[in-house]
Amino acid sequence: MAASRHGAGPTRGSAMNVLSLDNPVFVTYMIAAAIMILKIMGQGWMTVFRMLKSDGGFVSPEDLRPGAINRNPRPEQLELNDYVDRSRRMHRNDLENIPAFFACGLLFVIASPSILVANALMYTFVVARLLHTLAYATKQSHEVRATLYTIGSVAVIIMAIYVLAAAIA
Amino acid sequence: MAASRHGAGPTRGSAMNVLSLDNPVFVTYMIAAAIMILKIMGQGWMTVFRMLKSDGGFVSPEDLRPGAINRNPRPEQLELNDYVDRSRRMHRNDLENIPAFFACGLLFVIASPSILVANALMYTFVVARLLHTLAYATKQSHEVRATLYTIGSVAVIIMAIYVLAAAIA
Amino acid sequence: MAASRHGAGPTRGSAMNVLSLDNPVFVTYMIAAAIMILKIMGQGWMTVFRMLKSDGGFVSPEDLRPGAINRNPRPEQLELNDYVDRSRRMHRNDLENIPAFFACGLLFVIASPSILVANALMYTFVVARLLHTLAYATKQSHEVRATLYTIGSVAVIIMAIYVLAAAIA
Repeated sequence: MAASRHGAGPTRGSAMNVLSLDNPVFVTYMIAAAIMILKIMGQGWMTVFRMLKSDGGFVSPEDLRPGAINRNPRPEQLELNDYVDRSRRMHRNDLENIPAFFACGLLFVIASPSILVANALMYTFVVARLLHTLAYATKQSHEVRATLYTIGSVAVIIMAIYVLAAAIA
Repeated sequence: MAASRHGAGPTRGSAMNVLSLDNPVFVTYMIAAAIMILKIMGQGWMTVFRMLKSDGGFVSPEDLRPGAINRNPRPEQLELNDYVDRSRRMHRNDLENIPAFFACGLLFVIASPSILVANALMYTFVVARLLHTLAYATKQSHEVRATLYTIGSVAVIIMAIYVLAAAIA
Repeated sequence: MAASRHGAGPTRGSAMNVLSLDNPVFVTYMIAAAIMILKIMGQGWMTVFRMLKSDGGFVSPEDLRPGAINRNPRPEQLELNDYVDRSRRMHRNDLENIPAFFACGLLFVIASPSILVANALMYTFVVARLLHTLAYATKQSHEVRATLYTIGSVAVIIMAIYVLAAAIA
């Protein structure tokens, strides 16, 4: 009975060991996803750092109350501040790409790609997103950002098509 | 020993084959999630397309540098452009709904709903979100958008309550 | 053969029962994630409620068409309305934190933490995010919000580092 429940063929492999540290494709996903999680959370801290450093870029009226964060409140602290807003735009760009990768990468693992393809697509995504962050933070030209955005986006799109094809096959 | 480790009853089924292509409920989730992943990524490309087509709607000061994307820089390219901003609002609306679906749908699969219920809720969500996109892009009245938003949102809420009930039962 | 495929040791446990209701750590994740899913979706409904209550805070020009939602259209309904925008900011803050938790928590479960550590980190995240929402809605000082944001963010960061360490070990 164990054989009949577990003996799925290679194309329709059982999930039993797929989502575990025994599966190198899953380990790749774990590493890529963990780095991207730290990237998203770190972006929030870049916004915090930039708000404190520039003593402005706040978005809520109550942030003009005096306190440990704001010792010298002034109305202009609520004005748009590119230094701080840039970090928020970077965050938004992350959110437009990375949560889709989280879901897509997990399903891609279950769709059983080769380890070479999985490493190529997932680490390409991670490197493209980290370089996109660097390009955005250092105000590189639109073309640089666009290229890195494209690379990351295409990696996710390829994985999503692979997942869809595996599911409807 | 295999039996004792795998022999969970129907209400507390083992996860071993739940997250695999052998489980029709999971296949539904794979298809629904993959379509939604392509939806999110495609929305980014709609924004890119609209920026290029309208030659404006940029959000970063450095985008006014001359280059392949911007051959004729002008300050008004940084002004709010409803054609481009609409795509960003559509993207934001996606992000307020779809990542929660990714997590919720996966947990819903593990909570072992019937295939009929799973198909109904997941495909309802997918269709409602695609029609919401269409309604937003074609500037339908607020009531149309609100109705489609409601349908998608309620589908996720029902799944989340089902998951919570299964977990605390 | 079943033994050889399933007999992984405690540090590299098989995934077969990890993502099931038999695993208390996974049940904690299910409960935490389901609450956070309801939180995200509920935030959308708070925005809807506040738009209807204040009869404004709209963001699309077509929302000025007369209809069931807007019986008395006026141009100022498109102006920034802090009561409504606050709910959108709360939503954005959720999106900057919660989808990363969805991915991180799932991987954390597979990385096999103790139930005590999992409960502590996951429920700390949930409580911190719910209190952050309460603090934001009631216009508490920036310091209060910042403290609750920090607690939730650090919980996710600790889980992500644990996942990364498990994957590269």
